[in-house]
Amino acid sequence: MHSLKTRIQQDGIVLSDEVLKVDSFLNHQVDPELMKEMGEEFCRRFQDKKITKVLTLESSGIAPALFTALNLGVPLIFARKRKSLTLNEDILTAEVYSFTKQETSTISVSKKFLNQDDHVLIIDDFLANGQAGLGLIEVVTKAKASISGIGIVIEKAFQNGGELLRDTGYQVESLARISSLENSTVSFLEEEVTV
Amino acid sequence: MHSLKTRIQQDGIVLSDEVLKVDSFLNHQVDPELMKEMGEEFCRRFQDKKITKVLTLESSGIAPALFTALNLGVPLIFARKRKSLTLNEDILTAEVYSFTKQETSTISVSKKFLNQDDHVLIIDDFLANGQAGLGLIEVVTKAKASISGIGIVIEKAFQNGGELLRDTGYQVESLARISSLENSTVSFLEEEVTV
Repeated sequence: MHSLKTRIQQDGIVLSDEVLKVDSFLNHQVDPELMKEMGEEFCRRFQDKKITKVLTLESSGIAPALFTALNLGVPLIFARKRKSLTLNEDILTAEVYSFTKQETSTISVSKKFLNQDDHVLIIDDFLANGQAGLGLIEVVTKAKASISGIGIVIEKAFQNGGELLRDTGYQVESLARISSLENSTVSFLEEEVTV
Repeated sequence: MHSLKTRIQQDGIVLSDEVLKVDSFLNHQVDPELMKEMGEEFCRRFQDKKITKVLTLESSGIAPALFTALNLGVPLIFARKRKSLTLNEDILTAEVYSFTKQETSTISVSKKFLNQDDHVLIIDDFLANGQAGLGLIEVVTKAKASISGIGIVIEKAFQNGGELLRDTGYQVESLARISSLENSTVSFLEEEVTV
């Protein structure tokens, strides 16, 4: 997505060869117009999938996922993330390890909002090691719902998460795929490959 | 806001005389169309205020605040909430006590996104004891920015937060003001008073 790549080049801050900070337009301060465009783009890429629910993870996934859900005309669910969680029979959970924070969180979704008739589009802001995506897949699978695809705002294609998620066989669409952050420079993959 | 009140009557779950659960359309599963309407309504109520930023608190405030920011044509900032936080000179913080969870969190906003030229509209999903609202006011005040008003989705008008926030002198607008949850019934204040 051209406008997103331009914005990353303009306002993204490369903190290291592995870390890109986009807190001026995506995950702390948020540009609503850009989020709206992303929602339209995700809708375009998945519109033939008969999606019934969009699922994301609090908090940074909510903005792009909300516009995606609006465009698809379906509800959004945001999974809750907690360091520890009291087990409860009414919730579906998965453990997600964050390499950045070096800690494990439990993500949860109420059982009442996902069932076997649902076709779920998973949306997240970043794809790095794929752990959040795999956790969301686990939650949907536990609900016996089906997964219609996975939409990612920014994929760090030099890390292994993209491969992990594509190996599941689901359609994975990333709006910007970064091939390298070396020399404090953001490089994108030539093509946004659809698998 | 009529459609919101109708939705609360239909889908809100009264858990006790003090607790209303709206996780089917606002703070876990989210209805994007209703959020869009809320954004339009908040914009209408504050549109003459020359707002430059909308500020909310993760996670449940993000959806209504995002559409408000879209309609006002300004960026959204969502404050981060943590149980503990390493002090850092680049962030503005406030302590917020939650009566529901009986714990204190630190909310934070990066200094670089709020400054003395900003006119900030604060948006939050619930107003009960007013602690989150006061925390957000504190953050804006520390940035030397000015506060243009406070928009609340659901106010529990039988608790003291509304009075606390209105006593600050700022314009407080709630889309639905609940006068009572007694006998498992949601009652609204007759008028949505603008102060």
